[in-house]
Amino acid sequence: MVYDPAKAPLRSFHAAIPDFQSGKSTPRDFLEDCIAAFAAREDTLKAFVCSDWEAARAAADASTKRYADGDTLSLIDGLPIGVKDIVETRDFPTQMNSPIYAGWQPVRDAACVRALKQAGAIIPGKTVTTEFASGESGPTTNPHDSERTPGGSSSGSAASVGAGVLPAGIATQTRASTIRPASYCGAFGFKPTHRALNLGGVHPVSATLDHLGTIGASVEDCWLVARHIAENARGESGYAPLTGPLAPPEAVRPSRIAIVYSSGWSEVDEASGKAFKRAVGVLAEAGVTVISRAGDGQVSRFEDAISDADQLSLDLMGIELDWPMGAYRDAGGKLGPTILKYLDFAETVTAQGYADRLERRKVMIAEMERIRPHVDAIISLSASGPAPVGFGYTGSRSMISTWTLLGAPAWSLPVLTSDNMPLGLQLVGFRGDDSRLAGIARWMAETLTEA
Amino acid sequence: MVYDPAKAPLRSFHAAIPDFQSGKSTPRDFLEDCIAAFAAREDTLKAFVCSDWEAARAAADASTKRYADGDTLSLIDGLPIGVKDIVETRDFPTQMNSPIYAGWQPVRDAACVRALKQAGAIIPGKTVTTEFASGESGPTTNPHDSERTPGGSSSGSAASVGAGVLPAGIATQTRASTIRPASYCGAFGFKPTHRALNLGGVHPVSATLDHLGTIGASVEDCWLVARHIAENARGESGYAPLTGPLAPPEAVRPSRIAIVYSSGWSEVDEASGKAFKRAVGVLAEAGVTVISRAGDGQVSRFEDAISDADQLSLDLMGIELDWPMGAYRDAGGKLGPTILKYLDFAETVTAQGYADRLERRKVMIAEMERIRPHVDAIISLSASGPAPVGFGYTGSRSMISTWTLLGAPAWSLPVLTSDNMPLGLQLVGFRGDDSRLAGIARWMAETLTEA
Repeated sequence: MVYDPAKAPLRSFHAAIPDFQSGKSTPRDFLEDCIAAFAAREDTLKAFVCSDWEAARAAADASTKRYADGDTLSLIDGLPIGVKDIVETRDFPTQMNSPIYAGWQPVRDAACVRALKQAGAIIPGKTVTTEFASGESGPTTNPHDSERTPGGSSSGSAASVGAGVLPAGIATQTRASTIRPASYCGAFGFKPTHRALNLGGVHPVSATLDHLGTIGASVEDCWLVARHIAENARGESGYAPLTGPLAPPEAVRPSRIAIVYSSGWSEVDEASGKAFKRAVGVLAEAGVTVISRAGDGQVSRFEDAISDADQLSLDLMGIELDWPMGAYRDAGGKLGPTILKYLDFAETVTAQGYADRLERRKVMIAEMERIRPHVDAIISLSASGPAPVGFGYTGSRSMISTWTLLGAPAWSLPVLTSDNMPLGLQLVGFRGDDSRLAGIARWMAETLTEA
Repeated sequence: MVYDPAKAPLRSFHAAIPDFQSGKSTPRDFLEDCIAAFAAREDTLKAFVCSDWEAARAAADASTKRYADGDTLSLIDGLPIGVKDIVETRDFPTQMNSPIYAGWQPVRDAACVRALKQAGAIIPGKTVTTEFASGESGPTTNPHDSERTPGGSSSGSAASVGAGVLPAGIATQTRASTIRPASYCGAFGFKPTHRALNLGGVHPVSATLDHLGTIGASVEDCWLVARHIAENARGESGYAPLTGPLAPPEAVRPSRIAIVYSSGWSEVDEASGKAFKRAVGVLAEAGVTVISRAGDGQVSRFEDAISDADQLSLDLMGIELDWPMGAYRDAGGKLGPTILKYLDFAETVTAQGYADRLERRKVMIAEMERIRPHVDAIISLSASGPAPVGFGYTGSRSMISTWTLLGAPAWSLPVLTSDNMPLGLQLVGFRGDDSRLAGIARWMAETLTEA
């Protein structure tokens, strides 16, 4: 099988809206196509923990009626979306891929789930996560090669979108868990600015690193879902929510972008590096000025400032997950070896060691602000290569963790190929500039897919 | 019954430590006295939702052995402490005083509970909260008059300490829920700087207003508990924890304090106002310079700046509790009329309305910083009067909510009397200055109790 991004089976809901409006198709028709894809793929894909397609059909019929009545709730009315299984749902158990939560049925919807329902979206099921989004892998396989990992931790959301089963999925990202699985599965991924989406009811990993994200069949699908969550559920309390138009921002060509070689670049394989270079060539040809450390002192200073961001991110996560993971350990709950290792590390860090690391992050964030006036966005690879073969290891986080640590909005655009597998171009913006970045993402996806 | 603060039945654990060290008494002896007080008072007091005194005895025996071996875990080794029933415990159900959580058994300890256990403290039971610490009252009565409210929402923690059943209790405060019940029940209350104690596993009311606090039999007991929580569980992730000595800071006389007449002062009854004035007289006689708006432009400017802080606090709470309270409502969960009213309000507020209110708080916090160089602390009353008769109304929050909104550390010192009932003097400090404020609280409690 030769992977071709232009022929990827991505199933965009946004692209179907005109047909719903004209009456050529309905949300129920759309859902039936999803169900057919689910029937064809799920046995191998294993993207879902549980699902209820009959309830989804009833919800799609209600949406179809709202379309017929000209009385839709929003632009995502009728959109079927998978919800990562660390996110509380009152219609499905929420099991964290951990025996500690086997069969647990929450009494409430997470803030994002409530917001999606209010907008008329349909939740047909829960998607596989790694253990507490930070530990051992789940059973999900990669939609483009069933011998490879889908990435983690938002494995099921990414695989279901990459396989064309669903147009969108709820993801989270503490270090790399939205962008990486999106890259490996050939889906679009969007991690908004830190705290721009409400995390209420999402099991915490690391309080200052956790982000809510969306994985979708297009920039437009990712944007619609994220923006409607913010519209109905705000951001984290005390912080600015994701703003901008409810409809996807218009495509816009950036004037000037920077390539930033963060620490993970040493891991990039040759074919993936070449794919990135070709994309940079296309952007330059399209009239974008592309700068990098070779010719720009600002970029080089910034790269130096963030050179150990990946390790810092790992440290902070290890320290902050001490609660609740340590409380599960105390209670005799069965935790996997990865989380237990983080807990051992957490116990070695002093209060001052934690404060020093928080301070180092602040400095890095300030350094990123220094380059804001000089470029419209930053590009990089979403991962050091395509999805690795096997399932024990969900792949390297080091191309992504820097941007999560800095709280910057980021996209993975599935426009590259390496080793006959999808590979994402990572597009990173500045805090709070999510709307403009979405326009750039749209332009870049169009430009690089056509090329 | 004439209430006399000097003869209050407060049972200090800190005061008993020398006897544990000398072998004159043991943590088990201490616990038995608590159990005797529980047996005598609980039928009327109704401070506990559930308890397990046999397990507590076993824990006290273990602590007693550690004392005998000279191998204690901390200064709160053996301290029995009640935990407010919105705080997750794996040894007891956590029921939020709501039918929505009837019988709910968490799989983990909250961060503060884990920290207390690590320090050797003993948790004999869960104490009554109002519904989700923000709605309808529980069954608890006031230890000094069973026809009066104990205040809310930390009703059971305050009543059990005020009655001398326990030396300390875990409390929370979103608007007034630590300081007010402490004042009404004749206990000490301590609400540290915003985010200085980890709230992990505490059911949220309002994310930017929620504080963890302690209620205790003395300044020393409150400090020991709070400081050991911070030592073992840090503050909220990303914020500075409560620091200072693990042992209670030495008593220190302040040079200069300000009386600040926040909005609630219009509700203060005559007897309570006179009690406050007498205390101010004692402080002045002891050599403290006391300033107020009458003679000081700084204080007057600050008072003007915070004049609508109480309303702002109410608004922010109403907006922020939209999740999860709204999610419970969606799920058909039974919420009381108070919370439903907040939810109705939340729906009327726009994103801009919320952002504006956050900005107004920032301005108020900056105004408070302006007076930091001029005074050591601020004093006020902890409540507009003694506990009201009856149980439907837990009393006014307006003397306290300003300081919660500003995130300032605050104490209630049970040194005043009004209408033959206890009334607290409220001592407020500056963010992060908790350790020095504890020293002032200690001096003030000694000075005003002797007077």
